[in-house]
Amino acid sequence: MINETYKAMLSGKSIIRELSEYATARGKEIGYENVFDYSLGNPSVPCTDHYTRGMIELLENENPVTIHGYSPSLGIEQVRATVAESLNRRFGMDYEAKHIFMASGAAGALAHALRATTKPGDEVLTFAPCFPEYFPYVNTTGAVLRVVPADVESFQINFDELEKAFTPNVAAVLINTPNNPSGAVYSEDTIQRLADMLTDKQREYGHDIFIISDEPYREIVFDGKTAPYVSRFYDNSVSCYSFSKSLSLPGERIGYVAVNPRCTDADIFAVICGQISRGIGHNCPPSSVQLGVAKVIDEVSDLSVYETNMNLLYDALTRIGFEVVRPGGTFYIFPKALEPDANAFCEKAKKYDLILVPSNNFGCTGFFRMAYCIDTEKVKRSIPVLERFAREEYGL
Amino acid sequence: MINETYKAMLSGKSIIRELSEYATARGKEIGYENVFDYSLGNPSVPCTDHYTRGMIELLENENPVTIHGYSPSLGIEQVRATVAESLNRRFGMDYEAKHIFMASGAAGALAHALRATTKPGDEVLTFAPCFPEYFPYVNTTGAVLRVVPADVESFQINFDELEKAFTPNVAAVLINTPNNPSGAVYSEDTIQRLADMLTDKQREYGHDIFIISDEPYREIVFDGKTAPYVSRFYDNSVSCYSFSKSLSLPGERIGYVAVNPRCTDADIFAVICGQISRGIGHNCPPSSVQLGVAKVIDEVSDLSVYETNMNLLYDALTRIGFEVVRPGGTFYIFPKALEPDANAFCEKAKKYDLILVPSNNFGCTGFFRMAYCIDTEKVKRSIPVLERFAREEYGL
Repeated sequence: MINETYKAMLSGKSIIRELSEYATARGKEIGYENVFDYSLGNPSVPCTDHYTRGMIELLENENPVTIHGYSPSLGIEQVRATVAESLNRRFGMDYEAKHIFMASGAAGALAHALRATTKPGDEVLTFAPCFPEYFPYVNTTGAVLRVVPADVESFQINFDELEKAFTPNVAAVLINTPNNPSGAVYSEDTIQRLADMLTDKQREYGHDIFIISDEPYREIVFDGKTAPYVSRFYDNSVSCYSFSKSLSLPGERIGYVAVNPRCTDADIFAVICGQISRGIGHNCPPSSVQLGVAKVIDEVSDLSVYETNMNLLYDALTRIGFEVVRPGGTFYIFPKALEPDANAFCEKAKKYDLILVPSNNFGCTGFFRMAYCIDTEKVKRSIPVLERFAREEYGL
Repeated sequence: MINETYKAMLSGKSIIRELSEYATARGKEIGYENVFDYSLGNPSVPCTDHYTRGMIELLENENPVTIHGYSPSLGIEQVRATVAESLNRRFGMDYEAKHIFMASGAAGALAHALRATTKPGDEVLTFAPCFPEYFPYVNTTGAVLRVVPADVESFQINFDELEKAFTPNVAAVLINTPNNPSGAVYSEDTIQRLADMLTDKQREYGHDIFIISDEPYREIVFDGKTAPYVSRFYDNSVSCYSFSKSLSLPGERIGYVAVNPRCTDADIFAVICGQISRGIGHNCPPSSVQLGVAKVIDEVSDLSVYETNMNLLYDALTRIGFEVVRPGGTFYIFPKALEPDANAFCEKAKKYDLILVPSNNFGCTGFFRMAYCIDTEKVKRSIPVLERFAREEYGL
């Protein structure tokens, strides 16, 4: 018999995926260039030429038995060392290779880190608005994800609500900065305040509380700024990273867990992740892809288009009359919908071939997400359509 | 706190991995060419030139946003269709793309298929000798793996023991043909008899019993024969495949689940596998690797060295006086140890720099495994050493 638990998950289909499929189908009717598809967070810029050349060099010059051979289950030692050195250089950390676990993108990294730091019955806290897939990542472990209501003024952390949500069962706090879907980048103050609070809670409850930091957008930060590196603020922390956005390799499923050398059991954390992999038969990201990213470890794709698009959209949306917090990074913007029911709002937008994602699935109501990882030319063409939509439907 | 369940798994370290590490360390002392390392099942022949050229063509000529872009969570549609067509052509099946779920090698395929067909408390039966990683694959799902004692005469199935082991809680039977570690290839008679028995048990217990067929060695069969295709014999069956051995791509983590179109819930089985992936954050094998293998779907590496090595070893072992069943495929041979305690036997072999894996971890006692996916020249050099070992330690 097919497992009923997984069957039941089928009813919770991703609204983002459904909207993306709608956009594709609509594109077949009217030409995809006429659909303003802001649904999917799929990078629109190519990987760097160096990545492509590096992969070709590996294939042409190296022994295929080596480059396609088994990776150790925690990752290729030299790749882990390269990741550690890069993080140390860039963020003033002191990782060694043993603190790095190579994973299938941030999703795989998070799933491993969550399993390592929780047991069934534990609680994991995260903050609205949040990535909807956090629910399956946490809830299939036997732990429970609880979402702390948003700070809708700035999309930093609502500490009053966090205080109310805390219980002795909280084993981990899952954060995402720069944030999908709000585009907010947590300030140093926010992270320090969170660290101080968790330090107090650890003392009060007498057990570890980990910060699991989801960081795929770490390099997409605007106005020449950089995102504060979370693990510098709190010892019991792990960074979950993906090369999906920074190098535009989402389909290559490559990322890592970086374990804070000062966390509890820091020396065996990556080994524990390897044990988790054993059970799910995963056994590490592909060897060739590990070797490929290690060759370009400090590179990023040309990410400037995202800032260009953000500025265009932010200016247009505020001019039209939307309430919107200016994103500090990512390729998302998260304006307030023009009616309380974000689902109804996004449904009306479809009449204008504007594909917007309602906020309900991100754990808060009344907003919508636009993923502006699309051509700037299309962003520009969408602005008069947004204007017409706001005018005709809401009288703005 | 670090999860204690996973911590406890650390004590069950893989004996194969330990022996392999011992061989590497010993190689640093005396030169690896002097260590007769039969520990690891790591293919020794390269992938085909076509695979390498195909990957380079993809990287040079295709849009990087496409080849490194997100794969649908069940696999790239065209890749799934290509796999289905290949299986239909080769094995007379009638798969459609919807029956194929792309997975991280056979390990990932098995972990998904086992989760799809069982619930916590269910039993999964497998046959000794078996791959030790079956235990974490099954036991981390909440189901329980039970090992049916071996048919040590032929390493086909011991049906008397299977009958004794059956209970109404059995939800799946996990088989592996061609077999690691015995090298046995199940005959059509064996598979038909198993199918008939499971058909009866399904009727008796009133629920589905799936065959989960682990098939990474499907193309490594000797004497010009082919392995009977398991899903032709039984409707409630899924094939779990890896390109690791046939194309020598073990580190690329690429394989699939092929769902028998006549099994229960055949049309949603792959979709269920996608839901399982959601929870573990896996989201499909890398897009570029999927595209790469699809280009060479019917190809295999030059696998002839394995048959050459098998014949050399089989002839030598029988001449020396070992009892051994002649392998029908794979790159393993599984002789009887020269004393009842296989651990003691393999420990003594280390004195001769012969690295042999004792059978205890494969679920039966008194045998040892040799993985002869190594250079033929080294196999030849190992034979006088095997002779000396058998003579000096056991008087043969």
